[in-house]
Amino acid sequence: MTVDFHHRLASVASEIEDVLVAIFDVATDPPVPPRLLSAMRYAALGGGKRLRPFLVVETARLLGGDQATALRAGAAIELVHVYSLAHDDLPAMDDDELRRGKPTLHLAYDEATAILAGDALQTLAFETLADGATSLDAAMRAELVRLLARAAGGAGMAGGQMLDLEAEGRFEQTAELSAPAVAKLQAMKTGAILSCAVEMGAVIGRADAPVYQTLLSYGRALGAAFQIADDILDIEASSAELGKATGKDAGRGKATLVGLWGVEKARAELERLTGDALAALAGFGAEADILRAAARFTADRRK
Amino acid sequence: MTVDFHHRLASVASEIEDVLVAIFDVATDPPVPPRLLSAMRYAALGGGKRLRPFLVVETARLLGGDQATALRAGAAIELVHVYSLAHDDLPAMDDDELRRGKPTLHLAYDEATAILAGDALQTLAFETLADGATSLDAAMRAELVRLLARAAGGAGMAGGQMLDLEAEGRFEQTAELSAPAVAKLQAMKTGAILSCAVEMGAVIGRADAPVYQTLLSYGRALGAAFQIADDILDIEASSAELGKATGKDAGRGKATLVGLWGVEKARAELERLTGDALAALAGFGAEADILRAAARFTADRRK
Repeated sequence: MTVDFHHRLASVASEIEDVLVAIFDVATDPPVPPRLLSAMRYAALGGGKRLRPFLVVETARLLGGDQATALRAGAAIELVHVYSLAHDDLPAMDDDELRRGKPTLHLAYDEATAILAGDALQTLAFETLADGATSLDAAMRAELVRLLARAAGGAGMAGGQMLDLEAEGRFEQTAELSAPAVAKLQAMKTGAILSCAVEMGAVIGRADAPVYQTLLSYGRALGAAFQIADDILDIEASSAELGKATGKDAGRGKATLVGLWGVEKARAELERLTGDALAALAGFGAEADILRAAARFTADRRK
Repeated sequence: MTVDFHHRLASVASEIEDVLVAIFDVATDPPVPPRLLSAMRYAALGGGKRLRPFLVVETARLLGGDQATALRAGAAIELVHVYSLAHDDLPAMDDDELRRGKPTLHLAYDEATAILAGDALQTLAFETLADGATSLDAAMRAELVRLLARAAGGAGMAGGQMLDLEAEGRFEQTAELSAPAVAKLQAMKTGAILSCAVEMGAVIGRADAPVYQTLLSYGRALGAAFQIADDILDIEASSAELGKATGKDAGRGKATLVGLWGVEKARAELERLTGDALAALAGFGAEADILRAAARFTADRRK
């Protein structure tokens, strides 16, 4: 099953790449200025595990949802993810130099272009979901926009990034956050978009309310596990392995559960959350094995 | 009619302020971090003519469209407008210090907060349109998201800002733009969102195809006129009158038609475009007087 999982992950990543390329290739009148389009493509194409789109696609597939629709929604959530990476990497934010093995967007281009390209990638995400040319019915399009906006905005990803900067002590002397406060920060910063991916898949698969709740529980546990695994990797892996800077969280005073607890206790929590994710899927049979493998992969990944 | 127009403009601005306040007051779980919410409110509340929402509301009213819906859509387009102002003012972009009579967002807060608040304001715009709690039917919600995204993205506002930065010669030595190239840049940078406001009103008013085209012609002419008037004001008005920096376009090498042509020829073009906007409305009776007044106001305004 592990082999099957990695094959499926790579396969969906390849399909998502194709959808993104097609989205960037759409001719518009007036055309997108070449420098801006080039920066948007640089940020979005050719990298990443595409885990968020994978969760959309595999959740939808579990429920028999339309795959073309799921791929399009997956591309939209990936556009939001890459916009957030481009902006988080800016000098005024985390000031990072390496992302997905390449120079960050503002180094490859410049700061102004990186800001604008991030802005335009976010816009493109919502345009992709709302576009009438898709097979989506209008109610589903509006619902997907609502879910993605809620997960990306002030009460989700952007809000989590704000709390993250505050926890660094940038704006005033802050007391060290408690573990529940760090967990809440991370549920917003990375968990909201990951569980949104599962929710989008559930919407596309027209899940009824109990199934929706089940999948939401799975998505939330997986999202929390993802961040702990990421923080352990930040300590244990090399920059070359990850394709981004490592070991910077501690230096910056970033609030992480690993920092508060140490690696051993964080690993135990990671195991517990993975168990929660698997338990949420207990009502499904073998058809949910791919989502089970995704939960294990999230905990065990080495990059 | 002029008195009536200014009264109506102020009245819609007041209603939009109320809608925006209500949107920011919505309780979320988790809550938006106070610093981020405060920055978003700072950027969005208590300022501006609210011309874009006014165009949504008055176009919808002309066609008998639902006013609560138009106000909500107007608030969404204003959120996109204020996000773009916050990002355009950043040090890496136009590096401005004054906006709507107040210190710009990154000076009142800091750069990271201004980037994040701008990002979250854009997200909130799309959430506002997609939110199922509105009276909008789903097809209309999806169509409004699509229109706004198209006008705000790489082929619209963000693309125009990219061309604007290029025209300053930031990235390489650029030849001075021709008048048609400047007009195209400005049609993207400011025209797209202004004509989108009219289109959103037309969608809310369920305009048939010929009426839609008529209103689109009006919106495009008004949008082009707006930018020329803005550029003339940048030369002729004082910073205190405008509540933002003036006289900076020429210093920066910003591409404007006024810079290419001089004020006199630019005024003639402004008159011509205003005539086009009025001509587009020729098929309407007195019920369109408020939109006619908006076109004259756009050309004649002193701030």
